[in-house]
Amino acid sequence: MFKCKLRSQLNEQLRALDSRIDTQCALVAELQDWFRRRAELHQDYSIKLEKLSKSLLARHKEQKVKREQWNLFSVYNCWQILVNQTKKDARDHGAMADVYLNNIIPRFTQVQEDVQRIYKKCRDIGYESHEELLKVLHELHTTMRTYHMYQAEFKSAESKLQNLEAQKAKLEQNNPKEKLEKRKKFKVIEKEIEKRKNKFRDAKLKALKARNEYILSMDSANAAIHKYFVEDLSDIIDCMDFGFHSSIAKALMTHISGQECFKRTLQNGIDDLNKSINNMDSRHDKQRFLEYNNAAFMLPKKFDFQGHKGDEKNQVIVTHPIQEGNGETLRSFSFKVNQFKNRI
Amino acid sequence: MFKCKLRSQLNEQLRALDSRIDTQCALVAELQDWFRRRAELHQDYSIKLEKLSKSLLARHKEQKVKREQWNLFSVYNCWQILVNQTKKDARDHGAMADVYLNNIIPRFTQVQEDVQRIYKKCRDIGYESHEELLKVLHELHTTMRTYHMYQAEFKSAESKLQNLEAQKAKLEQNNPKEKLEKRKKFKVIEKEIEKRKNKFRDAKLKALKARNEYILSMDSANAAIHKYFVEDLSDIIDCMDFGFHSSIAKALMTHISGQECFKRTLQNGIDDLNKSINNMDSRHDKQRFLEYNNAAFMLPKKFDFQGHKGDEKNQVIVTHPIQEGNGETLRSFSFKVNQFKNRI
Repeated sequence: MFKCKLRSQLNEQLRALDSRIDTQCALVAELQDWFRRRAELHQDYSIKLEKLSKSLLARHKEQKVKREQWNLFSVYNCWQILVNQTKKDARDHGAMADVYLNNIIPRFTQVQEDVQRIYKKCRDIGYESHEELLKVLHELHTTMRTYHMYQAEFKSAESKLQNLEAQKAKLEQNNPKEKLEKRKKFKVIEKEIEKRKNKFRDAKLKALKARNEYILSMDSANAAIHKYFVEDLSDIIDCMDFGFHSSIAKALMTHISGQECFKRTLQNGIDDLNKSINNMDSRHDKQRFLEYNNAAFMLPKKFDFQGHKGDEKNQVIVTHPIQEGNGETLRSFSFKVNQFKNRI
Repeated sequence: MFKCKLRSQLNEQLRALDSRIDTQCALVAELQDWFRRRAELHQDYSIKLEKLSKSLLARHKEQKVKREQWNLFSVYNCWQILVNQTKKDARDHGAMADVYLNNIIPRFTQVQEDVQRIYKKCRDIGYESHEELLKVLHELHTTMRTYHMYQAEFKSAESKLQNLEAQKAKLEQNNPKEKLEKRKKFKVIEKEIEKRKNKFRDAKLKALKARNEYILSMDSANAAIHKYFVEDLSDIIDCMDFGFHSSIAKALMTHISGQECFKRTLQNGIDDLNKSINNMDSRHDKQRFLEYNNAAFMLPKKFDFQGHKGDEKNQVIVTHPIQEGNGETLRSFSFKVNQFKNRI
């Protein structure tokens, strides 16, 4: 009966372990599915970013003539950095999708295969252990039954001997000693007692041996069951999990290093744009514009005195009548100069 | 002629400045376009990430019963982190799109409006400056022509006087002094010379004044042109660019702070996943599994000695005949114990 109970418990263990491996594989499959679907999104995003970058650069090339003066502006560099960033983002997301599909997902497939292969072996070992246990249990039942049987026989032999010895005692009680030895009945009883004593000794020995066997079997069974439940089961599960976490960890670390890569690109983009913003220089822009349009903004030649037919007096001559006459002109000249100076 | 040349140069300047403002606005419009198109991609990506996250969580809820044992595995926590990361990524990209559309793009619109409004004023000022310059130039031409005219008149008056004085000298040469004064011709010439001397003096003064005016006009024109080309133009362009770079910078810094936000989320995701990987614990998983399936893995009760009808001798009894009999049992018992100890 105990054997049935143990067998049932051992089968329950196998079912639990089967269920465990199914759960493990389902979990890995779900992880794999996340990576697969996430890779699709990375890929889709990458394609769209690439398309945007190409479209902007194509339009820029197409409008090269119209946009001839863009490089006179420091802001232009900021735009260039943003467009380049788009290209880098496209590349990063494409690379991430690739790593997911061609590195991480196959790792998970391998994990599932490994886990299932290892489990098959562990399960076989477990099953063998169960058979061993049940064998030991069977032996215990056998030795126990044998012991009970031989002990019963011993008790029976003991009882029979005791009966005969009682009969002899009764005879000795009723008759004097010298008569007895000549009586036939007394001789028969003594022969019977001798026979019984032998049987009794044999039965006792058998019973003793049987008990010993039973006790040894019992200790053996207890030790085997203890070892299986306390050590072997634990070892089997450790075996099932062998390398599982480290393989999963490796796959996830690959994902993490991809994320670190994203982080670096992000940081570089931030640094480049910060630098570009700091380099925006209005004075420099103005300078480049004036140089580009040099002809329009070039200071014309000064006016020279155009004397009339050899008249070389090119200085203002001030005498008394002139002072009065040009006074107004001088005042209006000073006014004009000040006006220009103070304007805007 | 010079006035036409200068007018043409000044018009060329206005064209160059018009072109500059167009380029500035086109550049800002292109920046704006990058943000608009980039926002679309962020939005699209965000929607897809949100959809993925919802789909995974819905499926997880749906299969709640099937996945009952998932939390016995430390790997499950890694999966949870990845799914949560998807949700955070969706949120971040959505926020980025929102910032682009509702913060940065309106800033660029404002920049374009500001730049155009300021330019209109600057252009008007520039145009006024041009009109002033051309006026000064016109005055220069007027004074120059006046000077040439008066100088010519002066020379003519001088020449006429010189002729009359030559005629008088000739008369004095041919006739004695006392006769001359009574001759009518002599008196006429002296009167004429007197008239001419007055005209000469007047013409000389007029020519002098005209020259002075001309020279003053010339200096005035040179000063005005110099000031306009060297100072005013520069001021106008500085005005056109007023606040341009700082507004652009503010918009781009907003983008950068969005990128910093991405970086933080990325880093947090990396940290969480690293922690989860480090927390993967096979021993702990095994423990939880054994506890979850406690009934199947519970150590059964030890076997006790079942004595036959009051037989309480539950120890192995070794005497000489027993030793031989149970020897084999003892040896096979030791063997079995060792076998279990050494297995797996």
